[in-house]
Amino acid sequence: MDIKIEKDEVIEDLGIEGLKIIQNKKEFCFGIDSVLLSDFAKNLKKDSIVLDLGTGSGIIATLLCAKTKLKKIYGVEIQKAVSDRAKRSIKLNNLENKFEIIEENIINLQNYFNNDTFDVIVTNPPYKEKSTGIKNINEQKYISRHEVTASLEEFIKISQKLLKSNGEFYMVHRPERLVDIFFYLRKYKLEPKEIQFVKGDIEKEPKLILIKAIKNGKHFLKVKKDYFNN
Amino acid sequence: MDIKIEKDEVIEDLGIEGLKIIQNKKEFCFGIDSVLLSDFAKNLKKDSIVLDLGTGSGIIATLLCAKTKLKKIYGVEIQKAVSDRAKRSIKLNNLENKFEIIEENIINLQNYFNNDTFDVIVTNPPYKEKSTGIKNINEQKYISRHEVTASLEEFIKISQKLLKSNGEFYMVHRPERLVDIFFYLRKYKLEPKEIQFVKGDIEKEPKLILIKAIKNGKHFLKVKKDYFNN
Repeated sequence: MDIKIEKDEVIEDLGIEGLKIIQNKKEFCFGIDSVLLSDFAKNLKKDSIVLDLGTGSGIIATLLCAKTKLKKIYGVEIQKAVSDRAKRSIKLNNLENKFEIIEENIINLQNYFNNDTFDVIVTNPPYKEKSTGIKNINEQKYISRHEVTASLEEFIKISQKLLKSNGEFYMVHRPERLVDIFFYLRKYKLEPKEIQFVKGDIEKEPKLILIKAIKNGKHFLKVKKDYFNN
Repeated sequence: MDIKIEKDEVIEDLGIEGLKIIQNKKEFCFGIDSVLLSDFAKNLKKDSIVLDLGTGSGIIATLLCAKTKLKKIYGVEIQKAVSDRAKRSIKLNNLENKFEIIEENIINLQNYFNNDTFDVIVTNPPYKEKSTGIKNINEQKYISRHEVTASLEEFIKISQKLLKSNGEFYMVHRPERLVDIFFYLRKYKLEPKEIQFVKGDIEKEPKLILIKAIKNGKHFLKVKKDYFNN
């Protein structure tokens, strides 16, 4: 196979169906959050058309190809070097027929897709607001972690446009942003239906939150039992 | 002392400073939620002027008189029989100088108080939306449990008016309403700062949620460790 592995890149074995992800050790690498989100979303329906906003290495989409019977998943990634790497991982995994990369800012997706197109949208967006925290010297990491190219509200707004009515929206984020998340989800009629906190220990505060929302869903939230992960 | 105890009424000892609450066994009785809320709010500042919206038996206000050094607390209760009972409990506890009942609908409180009056507002509002659930045959219980006389949004809206800037808002509610709660708190600039889930067991989903918000507070939510209560 003609797949180039560049300087500082490593091939990570996902331990499922022989799938692999190419990562650059010096850039932003996927974390447990993406693995947990793919698990949280794994009951999506057979033949679903899925969108992954801010796909990065392609980790979530790749795992969903293995864990579900989805028909097609599109991964949107604004950074060229990152999306090129994801494309090579797709080739490495022979997923060209199921997983396609779109190199674009998520706010422009209405140029690619009609409204009400997707059954499911998954996203692991940047966790930090644009102006917060120490600006990372590595610009690629900074863009992956901060809302530089699109805000949380923009991730949710475009999701409302592109999801079918009753379509499912899955997101992983930080607990300290939960008010923002619920506020914008309700504003754009993606009603939060289930949340699950991820904790390292019963004695600790949660470090992550998993959220499932339904477009035009009824108002009623289920807070699931905690997920423990060290 | 000349305090009348009516048919079906009992005197409940709170086990703190000899305080007591008169309850009617056949009507809505206070629960652990009120006790937990008074504990969650107990770090309020010395000499605070406090408002308790939907005071019911007066349980939260009575406990706050014991647990804090508040200066004055007003309890608002729309139901005449309920507020009369709370007034007798106040007399029984010799709290006439600290705790005063206002028999009124909370939506009319701007006729009683100027805006930006209170340091702290506490509330254990009805948990259920007006149109949901089985209508209780007992009208008093129904009003205590359902948003008949004021909606969640109205509880939050009036709180924003009457709280000072940086004033504290404490509420106990059901987890399934958390989206509504965060949406309206953000809308009315009472920013949620801390939440704590109450669980019967680590293996169970939460049954209650405690919320602290700050009027005009910065956006950043702390999700505290769970509180376990059987």
